Amino acid sequence: MTAGSEDTLVQMDRQDPLAAKTAAFDVPAEQIYLDGNSLGCLPVSAKQRAREVVEQQWGQDLIKSWNLHQWIDLPFSAGEKIARLIGAAPGQTICCDSISVNIFKLLSAALMMHNERHVVLSQQGNFPTDLYMVQGLARQLGEDRCSLRLAADDDIASALTDDVAVLLLSHVNFRSGALYDMQAITEQAQARGILVIWDLAHSAGVVPVQLDACRADFAVGCGYKYLNGGPGAPAFLYVARRHQAQAAQPLSGWMGHMAPFDFDNAYQAAPGVAGFLTGTPPVISLSILDAALDVFADVDVAQLRQKSLALAGVFMQRVAQSPLLAELQLLSPVDEAQRGAQLAYRHPHAFAICQALIAHGVIADFRAPDILRVGFSPLFLRFADIGRSVDVLSRIMRDELWRDPAYAVRHKVT
Amino acid sequence: MTAGSEDTLVQMDRQDPLAAKTAAFDVPAEQIYLDGNSLGCLPVSAKQRAREVVEQQWGQDLIKSWNLHQWIDLPFSAGEKIARLIGAAPGQTICCDSISVNIFKLLSAALMMHNERHVVLSQQGNFPTDLYMVQGLARQLGEDRCSLRLAADDDIASALTDDVAVLLLSHVNFRSGALYDMQAITEQAQARGILVIWDLAHSAGVVPVQLDACRADFAVGCGYKYLNGGPGAPAFLYVARRHQAQAAQPLSGWMGHMAPFDFDNAYQAAPGVAGFLTGTPPVISLSILDAALDVFADVDVAQLRQKSLALAGVFMQRVAQSPLLAELQLLSPVDEAQRGAQLAYRHPHAFAICQALIAHGVIADFRAPDILRVGFSPLFLRFADIGRSVDVLSRIMRDELWRDPAYAVRHKVT
Repeated sequence: MTAGSEDTLVQMDRQDPLAAKTAAFDVPAEQIYLDGNSLGCLPVSAKQRAREVVEQQWGQDLIKSWNLHQWIDLPFSAGEKIARLIGAAPGQTICCDSISVNIFKLLSAALMMHNERHVVLSQQGNFPTDLYMVQGLARQLGEDRCSLRLAADDDIASALTDDVAVLLLSHVNFRSGALYDMQAITEQAQARGILVIWDLAHSAGVVPVQLDACRADFAVGCGYKYLNGGPGAPAFLYVARRHQAQAAQPLSGWMGHMAPFDFDNAYQAAPGVAGFLTGTPPVISLSILDAALDVFADVDVAQLRQKSLALAGVFMQRVAQSPLLAELQLLSPVDEAQRGAQLAYRHPHAFAICQALIAHGVIADFRAPDILRVGFSPLFLRFADIGRSVDVLSRIMRDELWRDPAYAVRHKVT
Repeated sequence: MTAGSEDTLVQMDRQDPLAAKTAAFDVPAEQIYLDGNSLGCLPVSAKQRAREVVEQQWGQDLIKSWNLHQWIDLPFSAGEKIARLIGAAPGQTICCDSISVNIFKLLSAALMMHNERHVVLSQQGNFPTDLYMVQGLARQLGEDRCSLRLAADDDIASALTDDVAVLLLSHVNFRSGALYDMQAITEQAQARGILVIWDLAHSAGVVPVQLDACRADFAVGCGYKYLNGGPGAPAFLYVARRHQAQAAQPLSGWMGHMAPFDFDNAYQAAPGVAGFLTGTPPVISLSILDAALDVFADVDVAQLRQKSLALAGVFMQRVAQSPLLAELQLLSPVDEAQRGAQLAYRHPHAFAICQALIAHGVIADFRAPDILRVGFSPLFLRFADIGRSVDVLSRIMRDELWRDPAYAVRHKVT
């Protein structure tokens, strides 16, 4: 189907099996939100649950809620809802802490399982916090027990040498949207005795992930992007069942104890993935994430993928067809099989263009030094939105609206 | 003032300078809540802020809120509100992660500053997660770089030997409510070159704490107990300014980077306490905690302390005067100067008694194996509540209501 006319887009929206899902979100009026890759929109279910957990459960039932409202089970119940979206059988996925903290746990566990090797291999273009956590662990343990090595993003295979203990990769690149072949890379790494930690921040909930089928070792991911769990929502982690008996992590807080309410002085890890919990669960934010995940209950990831690619396809095609947008250089792979749910365009004035877009109701984001990033969350976007967003972008370029000095002001977060 | 008659209590409520504060909370009707030491009540300001951050900031302003609503500053703005309550000058306190995770950061930093010693001294009766975090670090680093030693709670002084690197103590004991002399112990420890980490979980917001005046090195504390920040609220940590230049921690995530949005591949810690941040801040729960802290804005900790001790005094005196309650053995120090804001009573049927109390509208809590714990949060309790709670307890003991088999059922969390 071509994306030529407005009629085509209206028809695509009519035929969209996920069209009804937009009603499950509180999307701000008069805005087109292309930043679900940074922060997903507010699901109505999450809004209701936020009121319930704060006003009823905390406000009225107070401490009794740990049992009455199963607060204590939230890391597991939310985890299993995510498990469905990442191809993980039950008992391997929990929600807790941040991605950064969870990477530290998994890295530590993997290195302890592998004490004759100490190299952690990652990609040049990984999201910095992933690399920073390796650097922190290396400073703590010493370079003889943990050291970071970086390979070019497009040449991981040849860096999989026999001295590598752990491979830490982002499934989808946060800048370019490039997608790794999880199956192939996991297989190549494991053939050399390397354990793999996948960061699913930009794939969980929008790109089909098959952790079990790929025989993945470990994974982490984000609750606030495509899972729409709210700003700073808890992250998740996955430990393959076959590693659970030997994998141990150093952030051994009371929630990971086999009997936390016995108040023993000696730590004994809970069996299974529960041993990867640390402190008291963040009940309010976990409840909100848990409710946000209910939007996915009757949705197939294949459907999400199909629509997300179609939305991106319309955007790409329209940008390519507009002479006004010729200066925007596509950084993302054109091949759908190699791309996540976002597109990145390079432009020397990307920052000001992004600000102008936002001022005109199209919420995109900017990544230093010169990247305009647009994300295609399939649950709350319509095809008509995409058409309009390219129209706005064209107008901004045609009239050079981005030259307005107001759009050059940088805040702390962009 | 004696606590003999109901009239006395009515008069105490009338003279209570904090009496008006009860209106700042949504306290459940028909209940007396003596468990603010586990989970504080819902402040009205927190309820309003929860709606605002979810429905307006997330729902409508979405990603723009990072600047528009200062989300990025929350770890610092909430931290400074706590700083006031713990005697810390600005620039030393931040809100982030859980107590467990924060202990790991501070322990690691302290041991790195002290690399010729490796013993972490703590108390037998410390809250288990504190000990578990030392054990986790010891497993990771090896016993030659970190090893846990336990001293009797009432004999810390003689255990302060020259091989100890770090002393990790809970200011108020979670079971007994016993309070350490922070000034004296910090001084004794530092005289032997020992760095001290104070866990303020059961003192921040209710017991006067003077971290700066005591020349404390490090501290952590809890957002959901006396600070009323909501279930699983983020914790806080304090790093004395004089240590900030050399203290470094291994959970070096992007929020602790000096320029997180430059997306550099090499970690460079932010100056000051900001280098102790790790992942993306938990915006919703931090906002709720931040609003809860506003209840303290016009309150003096000395007032909180005075009322809390007076409430506990009434409880203690009435229990002591009732022959029906003779079997309840007070575990907490009688001397006010040695006690936090809770009382602990030992009874072989403490579990069933606690359940019976809850069923009759008095929310207390139980700590294995035989401890009934009652907490005296001065912001939302009235003296009349205390009188009634002892009446209910007396009736339960007189009529042996706790023998009801329903009260013997243990849930996961009690």
